[in-house]
Order: sequence, then C-alpha cells, then structure tokens
Amino acid sequence: MEIIDGGITAPLGFQAAGVHCGIKREKPDLALIYIEKPAAVSMVFTQNKVRAANIEVLAEWRPTRLSAFVVNSGNANALTGERGIEDAKRMASITAAELGLDQRMVGMASTGIIGHFLPMDKIERGIKSAAGALSRGREADKRAASAIMTTDTVTKEAACRVTLRDGTRVTIGGMAKGSGMISPAMKSLHATTLSFITTDANLEEGFDRQFGEVIDSSFNMVNVDGDQSTNDMSVLMANGMAGGEPANDDSTFWEAVRWVAQELAKQVARDGEGATKLIEVFVTGAADVEDARSVARAIVHSNLVKAAIFGADPNYGRVLAAIGSSGAKIDLNKMALSMGPNGSRVPLFSRGKPLIAIGEEGKEALRSIMGEKTVKIMVDLGLGEASATAWGCDLSYDYVKINAEYTT
Amino acid sequence: MEIIDGGITAPLGFQAAGVHCGIKREKPDLALIYIEKPAAVSMVFTQNKVRAANIEVLAEWRPTRLSAFVVNSGNANALTGERGIEDAKRMASITAAELGLDQRMVGMASTGIIGHFLPMDKIERGIKSAAGALSRGREADKRAASAIMTTDTVTKEAACRVTLRDGTRVTIGGMAKGSGMISPAMKSLHATTLSFITTDANLEEGFDRQFGEVIDSSFNMVNVDGDQSTNDMSVLMANGMAGGEPANDDSTFWEAVRWVAQELAKQVARDGEGATKLIEVFVTGAADVEDARSVARAIVHSNLVKAAIFGADPNYGRVLAAIGSSGAKIDLNKMALSMGPNGSRVPLFSRGKPLIAIGEEGKEALRSIMGEKTVKIMVDLGLGEASATAWGCDLSYDYVKINAEYTT
Repeated sequence: MEIIDGGITAPLGFQAAGVHCGIKREKPDLALIYIEKPAAVSMVFTQNKVRAANIEVLAEWRPTRLSAFVVNSGNANALTGERGIEDAKRMASITAAELGLDQRMVGMASTGIIGHFLPMDKIERGIKSAAGALSRGREADKRAASAIMTTDTVTKEAACRVTLRDGTRVTIGGMAKGSGMISPAMKSLHATTLSFITTDANLEEGFDRQFGEVIDSSFNMVNVDGDQSTNDMSVLMANGMAGGEPANDDSTFWEAVRWVAQELAKQVARDGEGATKLIEVFVTGAADVEDARSVARAIVHSNLVKAAIFGADPNYGRVLAAIGSSGAKIDLNKMALSMGPNGSRVPLFSRGKPLIAIGEEGKEALRSIMGEKTVKIMVDLGLGEASATAWGCDLSYDYVKINAEYTT
Repeated sequence: MEIIDGGITAPLGFQAAGVHCGIKREKPDLALIYIEKPAAVSMVFTQNKVRAANIEVLAEWRPTRLSAFVVNSGNANALTGERGIEDAKRMASITAAELGLDQRMVGMASTGIIGHFLPMDKIERGIKSAAGALSRGREADKRAASAIMTTDTVTKEAACRVTLRDGTRVTIGGMAKGSGMISPAMKSLHATTLSFITTDANLEEGFDRQFGEVIDSSFNMVNVDGDQSTNDMSVLMANGMAGGEPANDDSTFWEAVRWVAQELAKQVARDGEGATKLIEVFVTGAADVEDARSVARAIVHSNLVKAAIFGADPNYGRVLAAIGSSGAKIDLNKMALSMGPNGSRVPLFSRGKPLIAIGEEGKEALRSIMGEKTVKIMVDLGLGEASATAWGCDLSYDYVKINAEYTT
C-alpha cells in the first residue's frame, strides 16, 4: 500500500468544490462532490433516534448509486420537521438540476447547529457557484474538506494506492469533519462524524457488510465527548473507473479502505474540540472483539482520564476504573497496563498489583509520557486473542469554552 | 413527613465522630459511626468490575447486622491487591477492638486516590481517636460528614421524621459524599458515591429489594461526569430503637427513606466537581420506567448539554440529541420539551417542531433560565405513564482544572 498526498479527488473521476454561501459569516460552508460515472455506494447513519432531515431522506431513498453529494456546514437541518425534510430534498433537486442528473442520484448532508431552518436561498446560490467550480487536485480537495468543517481547526484528508488481487491499481481518497458531539456507536453499521471515502475501484452493489466492518474499527472507535450526533454519516463511493474485477471480496482493498478510514478517524480525534493531545488506546488479550472494543472505548470516553491527560497528571487508576466500568469480562490478576511511546513503555499495573504506585521516579516518567502530543495506552486483558484500537483526545478548558459559547 | 435539621445521628442510638488522622494534609479524613444496638443493614455496591478492597471484603462478608462503620477519605484502597484486602479487614478489626465488638459487626469504606496503599499506622491512630470522640448531635454529624469528603466543597446531610402505619414515630438521617467520578448505574442494586442512611425504625433483616428501589430513584439518577467509581456504596442501617412493628412493607417509611436519599443525591449533584449549577431533569410520558430513566440520565450525562448550561447558551438542540441517543422509545411527533422554573416554563419543542428556534426573544428568555442556579428541564415523551427524575451539574473550567491537577 502506498500512502499518497491526496483527498477526495485522488481516485479517477471524482471532482470537488468548496464555496462560501453565507450560512457562516466568512468561512467556506458548502461542498460538492461530482462523480463522472455513477458510483456504487454504501452509507451508514447515526443510531441517534433524533435524526437530521437529510438522514431521514437518505434512509428512505436508500440509494445504491450516486453521481453527486452536496454538503453544507453551519446548520444541521435537524429538528426542523417537515420543512427540514423538504429542504433536504431541495438540496438534492437543485444540485441535480445544476448538473443534469436525476434527483435520486444526489446525496445530501448537513452539519452545524440543531433546530434552525436552512437558508435555502443561500444554499441554492452556493450549489450553483460550487457546480461551476468543480475540479480535481489538491486545491479542490482542500476547498471541499474546508467547506464541511464546523468547529474543526484543520481539514481531515487521507489517500492511498493499492494493487488488487487481479493486478488492478486503485486509489482510495477521503475527507472527514468532526470535532465535537463525537462518540462511539453502540451498534454496528453506525457512523460518527461526516466522512466521505471515494475510490475508482470496481465494486458491485451490496458492500454494506464490508463497509460496516471498516466503520466499526475506525469512526466507531473515536470519542471526543461521548455525545452522539443527530447527523453522523459515512459514505463510500466507488465509480469503477480503474477497471478490473469487482473488488467486493478483495481483502487488500478493504484493508486500504480501513487505513483511509482509520487515518481520518485519528485526525478527527486529534482535532477534537479543545484537544491538545491525541489518545490512542490499544487493547489486546480480550475474550472477544466486543470486549476489546468496549474496554478501548471506555478509556477514551472517560472524562477523568481525558482531564488527567490534559494536565499530564499520572493518575492512572482512572484508566483502570474506566476498564472496570466497561462491562467487558476482566480478571485483575491477569491484566496488564502500560503507557508510553513504542519502545519506551512504562508498566503501570500487572497481575493485580500497581507497579509504580508511590515511587516519585515512576510518577515522573509517567508525567513525561503524558506530556507528549500523542499518549498511548496499552491494555492486555490476558484472557484471549481479540484486540481493538480506539482514539480520543484530552478534555481541556477550551472544550468547555467552545461548548459554553457555541451559539452566542 | 417532617423535615428536620439533622444528619447521621438524628435517629435514636447512633453516634458519630470525624477526626484528622493524617492521610490528608489538614482536613478531617476518618469518620466513625457507632450504633448502640446492632442494626439490620442493606448495602449496595458499585457494578464496576475493578472494585476497591473494602467492597471485596463486604461483598464476601455480606453482613446483615452491623454495630459500627468506619470510613477514611484521601485514599480509596483500590487496586491494592492482597495487601489492600488485609488493610480493609484491619480497619474493621482495629475498630472492633476499640469498641469491644466482633470484627464482622464493623463495616468499612474508603474514598480518595486509586492505587496507593493505606497508611495503616495513621488509620489506627485515627480510629482510636475517633472512638474516644463519639457523640450525638449536629456537631458530631458535621464532623463525620466532613471526614468522608474528597473534592466535595460542602457536607451532604438530610434528615426527616415520619409516623408509620402502626403509629410509631421514626427518624431517618443520612450523609453522603461525592463530587467527581459520579455516574448512574447500568444495573439496579448499584450505588454511586458513598452514602450512609441511619434510622431508628424497626426493620426485619432482608430489605435489599426496597432499599435497591430507593437507590435506583436517587443516587443511581445522579451524574457528574459519567465516570463510574471503584468505591461506590450505599448503606441503610436500622437499629429498631424507636420500637413498633417491622416497617419492611410500610410505604410511608420507604417514601421517607427515598426523600432522604434523593435529598442527598441532589446535594451531590449540586456540589459536582467545578459545578456552578444544579440540573434537574423531569421525564414524563415514557412507555416504561426504564425508558424514562434512560432519557433523564442521557440528558444529565451529556457533556454538551452540561457545557451549554455552564455558559447559559440556549443551544437546546443538544438536549434533543441526548434524548435521541438514550436508546429509549421516542416519537418526535409526540414529544414536548420545555425549560424553566416552575410556573414560568419556556416551551422549546413540541410535536416535531422547534418553537423558538430563531426568535431573539425566545433565546433571551432561555438564556435567562439557563443563568439560574437550578436549571430545570422537562421532557414529555407523550407515549405512556412512566416518569423519572435525574440530577446533574454543569461542566465548567473548574471541572477540568480539578481533574487535571488531582494528584499533583
């Protein structure tokens, strides 16, 4: 697998644009993706029962092929009743008219404040202007990735190339947004944040299971604040323009998609609202994968762990308390916990006993590890072969500030 | 029911003391309760699988009668292995020797930092000094209630008197501690925080079900930060000194116990780490009580709701998002949401539609309600007859500060 500098238009046949239409004061707030040949798609949505209007529409339409995707930021079009549903459909119909497509070939997404109607006049002007600005390359990628941001401070992009079983060289690209209201799903086939993954690989319709598995080990393992959004969605769009046999069962292909999704997920965690650090949790030795995921998610979900990491406070007992509350099968006498960058781990707890509980030296080593930009936590449950990884960020003053002043 | 100014020694036959033994630098850190006649007890423990040593011991002993309870703060005696178990037992045996009791008639609890061994020499001196200081009355109540505090800023106490079915007048008193690492339970018969409820009512052994129901509608409905502690426990001790028939099935009695427990739970929420406001959530119209509780807990659990209330930011869409993620059965077209003190509610959402979404006047009214010291949120799910109440607090800069600097 070759990692490349790219985004949403890295694969053949994808064009993108990002423009300012006036929902936000100054920043880009409308993104458009156009696909030169209709792409086979799989989508996953939030499990929140309060769902945004676009999710209701897409869940009803259940498109298997798409030619375009339109996204606005600054307004979630959630809790907007019938009028919101109509507005979401109009986003699709305006885009379709502009690009000469059928309305049902256009997906739509929104993100931003809940409970306000979309300013459809601005959206309409924005779509027209974006349709005229569609192009390929890093500039276009970045403009689209910027236009879907809300409290994000940086764009999230990733891309790679891989050679499939039949020798076809395919490209996968992606962009995501997400900074707050980000929490792991409780059910599979559920996405957190907005993410768009594009590929020129050839996929036959019907790859929800494979894409669901990718999401379960990427976006569903990210936690910024434990709040599940009304608007979460992830979509994979494959236009087949690289040719070759259908890659539906090619594990090399899905590993590459997983890499892009995990890369984007990690970028979302690192840019969590107010975040100063990325937390990576590696759980091994679990009885089964559900337990491994529960433990990993419980740690990145804990406010106390997040606040301790913000302050580089070596209070690792909180990590163990989070493990204990995860619901997973554990045996303290078999469990081991360590922290630190690869190669210089500090063992903290092993087989029922704290290892550095009181020593000042241990505390200092731990404090220094917790001062790094990326804090790694390794848990070996000692019970089986299953593993999982989760990503989160620390809880800082700025998280509170951002969310105490969001609408004002 | 008569509300009285009292605490743990309000009922007949309970004595208490609180002393400084040196686990903390200056503040009281060891509390002792002595019961003149052995009391019938019911206890509930944390469901966290990483449990403190005292919880392991009490879960093994399963005492049905107790004559004393000893509690230290400043050190949780959690994740301390075999030595921790021995230390917890020694807390009981030292107390027993001092008071002329059998070891098994003494309960013990700890709260504070995880992963450090108890300084048993200090604990021993503290128990001896507390045994010599036992007394009744408000002074003794307050000293005991202070000695179990960790990051708490105020003591939590409540007491009331009630006349039972058979004409017996009984008193119920209680104290609690808890400020951080406070989250609702996922299972019944599970307590959050430390709480001690005393009564001179006559109870026959075997009232776990009734006490469990009290806890499920009081401490289990409190959320400060979503973190479940390793040390949570609640205990009800009834010494029968008021005489009368057994009150096991007297609903008046259990209503009074519930009042004390809810009063303490509310005090815990109001004194949550860094809290500037108490959040009370009232859910009605749920299909069943589990759904009502899930919705109420999801709202007080949401970091985004908590931060919005801290900043008096009228972003009530976050409340609806929390309701949607609770897992409870909901129908947006039947649901209503309002906020505000009794008598001056601001309706926010009704039957699928936001009511004040954009109007500046509505926003201002909401901002003013969110600026109150107690913020009330009313949700009517419109689906059935079940209801629930939950308590939480806002998420402030000080929560982060307290937890980023806890051990340092």
